[in-house]
Amino acid sequence: MTAAAATAVEPTTAVEPAASGEATDVDRLNTAVEAAQAAFEKGRTADPATRSGWLEAVAAGLERDATELVDIARRETHLGGPRLEGELKRTVFQLRLFADEIRRGDHFDATIDHADPAWGMGPRPDLRRYNVPLGVVGVFGASNFPFAFSVMGGDSASALAAGCAVVHKAHDAHRELASRTAETVAAALDAAGAPPGLFAVVTGRQAGEALVDHPLVKAIGFTGSTAGGRALFNRAAARPQPIPFFGELGGINAVFVTRSAWAARRQEILTGFAGSFTLGMGQFCTKPGLLFVPAGHAADAGAELRKALAEFAPSQLLSQRLHGGYVDAVRALREAEGVDVLVEGDFAEAPAPTVLHTTADAVRKEPDILRQEMFGPASLVVEYGDESQLAGLAELLEGQLTTTLQAEEDDDVTELAARLSDISGRVLWNGWPTGVTVSYAQHHGGPYPAATSSTTSVGTAAIRRFLRPVAYQSFPAARLPEPLQDSNPWGVPQRVDGVWHHPTAAGRSPEAGRL
Amino acid sequence: MTAAAATAVEPTTAVEPAASGEATDVDRLNTAVEAAQAAFEKGRTADPATRSGWLEAVAAGLERDATELVDIARRETHLGGPRLEGELKRTVFQLRLFADEIRRGDHFDATIDHADPAWGMGPRPDLRRYNVPLGVVGVFGASNFPFAFSVMGGDSASALAAGCAVVHKAHDAHRELASRTAETVAAALDAAGAPPGLFAVVTGRQAGEALVDHPLVKAIGFTGSTAGGRALFNRAAARPQPIPFFGELGGINAVFVTRSAWAARRQEILTGFAGSFTLGMGQFCTKPGLLFVPAGHAADAGAELRKALAEFAPSQLLSQRLHGGYVDAVRALREAEGVDVLVEGDFAEAPAPTVLHTTADAVRKEPDILRQEMFGPASLVVEYGDESQLAGLAELLEGQLTTTLQAEEDDDVTELAARLSDISGRVLWNGWPTGVTVSYAQHHGGPYPAATSSTTSVGTAAIRRFLRPVAYQSFPAARLPEPLQDSNPWGVPQRVDGVWHHPTAAGRSPEAGRL
Repeated sequence: MTAAAATAVEPTTAVEPAASGEATDVDRLNTAVEAAQAAFEKGRTADPATRSGWLEAVAAGLERDATELVDIARRETHLGGPRLEGELKRTVFQLRLFADEIRRGDHFDATIDHADPAWGMGPRPDLRRYNVPLGVVGVFGASNFPFAFSVMGGDSASALAAGCAVVHKAHDAHRELASRTAETVAAALDAAGAPPGLFAVVTGRQAGEALVDHPLVKAIGFTGSTAGGRALFNRAAARPQPIPFFGELGGINAVFVTRSAWAARRQEILTGFAGSFTLGMGQFCTKPGLLFVPAGHAADAGAELRKALAEFAPSQLLSQRLHGGYVDAVRALREAEGVDVLVEGDFAEAPAPTVLHTTADAVRKEPDILRQEMFGPASLVVEYGDESQLAGLAELLEGQLTTTLQAEEDDDVTELAARLSDISGRVLWNGWPTGVTVSYAQHHGGPYPAATSSTTSVGTAAIRRFLRPVAYQSFPAARLPEPLQDSNPWGVPQRVDGVWHHPTAAGRSPEAGRL
Repeated sequence: MTAAAATAVEPTTAVEPAASGEATDVDRLNTAVEAAQAAFEKGRTADPATRSGWLEAVAAGLERDATELVDIARRETHLGGPRLEGELKRTVFQLRLFADEIRRGDHFDATIDHADPAWGMGPRPDLRRYNVPLGVVGVFGASNFPFAFSVMGGDSASALAAGCAVVHKAHDAHRELASRTAETVAAALDAAGAPPGLFAVVTGRQAGEALVDHPLVKAIGFTGSTAGGRALFNRAAARPQPIPFFGELGGINAVFVTRSAWAARRQEILTGFAGSFTLGMGQFCTKPGLLFVPAGHAADAGAELRKALAEFAPSQLLSQRLHGGYVDAVRALREAEGVDVLVEGDFAEAPAPTVLHTTADAVRKEPDILRQEMFGPASLVVEYGDESQLAGLAELLEGQLTTTLQAEEDDDVTELAARLSDISGRVLWNGWPTGVTVSYAQHHGGPYPAATSSTTSVGTAAIRRFLRPVAYQSFPAARLPEPLQDSNPWGVPQRVDGVWHHPTAAGRSPEAGRL
């Protein structure tokens, strides 16, 4: 985008000046929220094709400005170019997948009950329900994914797809990128004809808190730490009118290796584990932070992990603050009773990975050992005795985004798999939890503290978070919203008198996601 | 049910003895929750046909014991026989509709993404998601619907349909009925082969609070007052692991009459209004508590309402406590500035209906006038000047379960209708909000304080509240839950690679609800 274009959009989009780095004061926050509300009002009647066009324009804008955005991100986050390019590609893909999704119209959940004098509990009036957008949504970006879980990441994209307006609280770790991304987004939305103010960025803690408190804000999307997320969750719940707080707070992502899997694939498993827990310097909320292995194999595991990590080239962590938190977390855990060091790393500016070690007996004595997130390239290996203990050990864990089974086909892991589905949002078989695909079936969430609700922040299902149902009783046909009309002008799926009709399904190719 | 059967099930179902009226102490509450958790564990793998059978057995049990249950309810609640019989019929219908719904399998939201190396953001693993039940659910019954929103009402029925276990906190206003209903339910579940403890009733405030706090309880369903609901909502949000609180807190249910509708159908509208706000002695959460009419017609309206109410035979309110609250609420509102009496009622034990009156000017000065629920046979008529004021007046209202338009086909009410869908969960056209059908499209909820979440507590969509999604990545076919298997043994709808397949839809008749 040219400088002229940036100037043209600034007055209407409440984008903070890129250079200033100043925090947004409450007056400007209020202005941004009010502009977002006005944009929401103007944009809410847009048909799915129009709204999809807005998302696609944003995707194209991000692609066009990719080089400049990635350069800023490299400077601010210390993440590598290929990693950031991949993340931007994911972000763009996500916008296009969501654009396709709302064109299909599944998210309306359009449901039509015609009047029925013979209905079993007494005559039924004509009653029709569909989902409408909530209004203005506040989104808090994460430090570790400056594109995919930040400014125009999953929360913003799904809220815009739902028909909401978004005021995004930039993460302090990449303020310049946030501001620059917002310019790209605002220019793209503007050029595509979206109402001005539909998306804005604000900065600073005070603006973030005022965003959660603002009466016009109807929901919050958040990706970040448990402590920060819980504080804002409490704030959202304590409002005079409480609002939903969709927080993804991360977790430990335990991996369980059965005896037979260990016997058959020990080297492959340890190599995969080393690669996964160090990916992105271990700064993923899906980093496998716990590996349960059969007892008596700690020394082998240590040797294998040292070998697998020998070639690893560490880089800087995302910020000084996170580096400090990482050092504190690893030091605290290695000093816990029954914990020792399996692979000695370091705490350099670009820290070499650390692997700690403990036993099932130690964690049963002190389950908190299993609940310490080390956000960075460190993990904990736990030796277990009998395989039948694993389900019990799983019960000591808190809620997780993911859990993983490394097992052979014939292993008796039914009970363990059931426990894992109780405590996590995604259960993997012989894979690694890092790398979260954006698709229809994805679920990125899990029992608290993995998340503060049972919704997902990744995949098309994320759109539903920002909608609420409204029913219309005995409305004249001409006054019904399009998705609820018998003539179905938008061609959306409709459940009519209990039976689903998919007018567009036949014409759709399953290739939609191959964008 | 015979006395012998009751004795047989008591030890396993934690049903309070009917005669004692004693509050459940915390030890017994804990026992009930733990038994419910054990029953949940045992029952969770039941296929939809089996679970439907349990719901249908409960429906049949309630039908069989209807005479005895209605007799107890009449005694405890002062509600009339036909009203209670109708409510029991509704309750039974609801159980059967939910049984049919889970046989269809929509609620699983089964979503299958096959592995796709050409997926736009990079190769996609095999990923499959469906909904699983939350676990033990706590349900707080309402006083005003001792069957349909209480022991085996919508919350309990939808939680059981979802696959959850239920511990129900009986409303103090009908403890004996709660206990007796629980016996019927437990015996029916037992005879149908459901695991013991799947449903239990507890009583007393202490048990209710301990229920919200219990770590094994995963969600709360609540129907009741704003004050009581908000206190428990806060409690649920403040837990170490917060849980969703699905509270339906009621509201005012404003009705807007346009000038042309008034001119064309004044008498019909006032008669309908009088019938609706006095139905069940005005003790419905959908009672129309506000009627906006064109200015200059208060005297006519008063005369017409007095005529319509002349034949009305009042009965006792549900409890002494509610009577006291009703008297206080009506007295407070009639003393507000700008409010006078249009139809003089009384505060006898069986109170004659009261209609108060005010103007748009008065409520603009003091919007709280529009926010005072009078739970009983009273309502407020507001005269407005220009019809274009109505959308602005609607914005003064808090969240509502319902709003109603009384309008003619050609009226310009687009803006007003949009505001009404913003502030309420159900918008009616030329109808009355009392009488909430149980169907696929029903939505009984609305922005706070109508409800504490955007979900519904009535209709098949209520089932979804008690489910959470879990995704399975790269699982061997044989280890996948049935709804996620390619062979689809339960015949449920599956979204496969983005496209919905409804294997059973063709064979289904739209007559399912005509039970």
